[in-house]
Amino acid sequence: MILYYTPHTCSLASHIALEQAGAEYQLKRIDFSKNQQRSPAYLRVNAKDRVPTLVTSRGMLTETPAILIFIAQSFPAARLAPLDDPFALAQVQSFNNYLCSTVHVAHSHRMRGHRWADDPTAIEAMKKKVPQSVGECFELIEHEILQGPWVMGSLYTVCDIYLFTLAQWLEADGVDLGRLPKVADHRRRMLANPVGQSGVGRRSHARRGSRYRR
Amino acid sequence: MILYYTPHTCSLASHIALEQAGAEYQLKRIDFSKNQQRSPAYLRVNAKDRVPTLVTSRGMLTETPAILIFIAQSFPAARLAPLDDPFALAQVQSFNNYLCSTVHVAHSHRMRGHRWADDPTAIEAMKKKVPQSVGECFELIEHEILQGPWVMGSLYTVCDIYLFTLAQWLEADGVDLGRLPKVADHRRRMLANPVGQSGVGRRSHARRGSRYRR
Repeated sequence: MILYYTPHTCSLASHIALEQAGAEYQLKRIDFSKNQQRSPAYLRVNAKDRVPTLVTSRGMLTETPAILIFIAQSFPAARLAPLDDPFALAQVQSFNNYLCSTVHVAHSHRMRGHRWADDPTAIEAMKKKVPQSVGECFELIEHEILQGPWVMGSLYTVCDIYLFTLAQWLEADGVDLGRLPKVADHRRRMLANPVGQSGVGRRSHARRGSRYRR
Repeated sequence: MILYYTPHTCSLASHIALEQAGAEYQLKRIDFSKNQQRSPAYLRVNAKDRVPTLVTSRGMLTETPAILIFIAQSFPAARLAPLDDPFALAQVQSFNNYLCSTVHVAHSHRMRGHRWADDPTAIEAMKKKVPQSVGECFELIEHEILQGPWVMGSLYTVCDIYLFTLAQWLEADGVDLGRLPKVADHRRRMLANPVGQSGVGRRSHARRGSRYRR
């Protein structure tokens, strides 16, 4: 498999999941500063001009929640999702979908406002609201969703990988982590376990070929 | 099961899926015009103040893609998703995630701009871009994703239900359906089959208790 990624983006979640699954894969970096996501070569791989893209023997996949569950299903021994329990799996999917459709979207208004308005003043107004909108999302996670120690309680899942990934952006989004003790504790727990030790989490895809298990 | 829904929202997709699965369920309407989604009673069901919410014997579920796959898994005889093929299922999830995280989000900037900016001028600027941003999403679906006759080719899946639901908003979003012949054909096909005949698709949840099969 090949994972197309960009540092500091949500593609980190797919990278960590591949590592934890023990998958054999190659990384290919897409440099947003050089606009490589819009290069004809990359658009042939993924017409959405985004990352991540996971290329498999059957074809390519996009969208983090889909890739995460695919990795969990392809490597069941890694036990990254409750594959045999449709309701528990739906809870995992619900969390991941909240991250992609609401949390990530709120965050994106800080640097990608041009997707939704052309007026520079409007784009500035969007940036201004990010601490509040992202903050509210994470307060919901803190108070209503994150069961502890892991998102789904005692069961470690791809939700933890994805939450860890998006929570990396909190400080830059202007959200006070002091108001989110459970989210902060979750990050510490993730960094203390092999996600952090491997270097994937700390250095955002910089290191290749590391292998670890939880 | 109980489905909390609001007419003309994405909760239509979960409603159609429940019908097509042959599920026994009750509908409970949440009236946005009366701000019922923020009532203490509803917030106890779903702290996100959104629809849909599906209440099951195991607890509640939110987020359309999660609910759709849960319905497909709970009623396998309805064959609403390729449950035995992880790659094909990931393609289904990828499509559904694109709808929730990119297509629905682009649309939401027409009427829910306040989520991402406070300045009324910015909210107006967001509205203005909706025909373009939603149009681009549907052009990607038209040219790159929708295989025909169904989203996934010959296999009818929950993707078709979800696409049909979001494509209902195209005209109001100012997108010219004439530029999207495959999407328009998909809508006709959906309305010609029992989705339309049952009245669920045409009258946005107005009718209850109808039963049909594809």
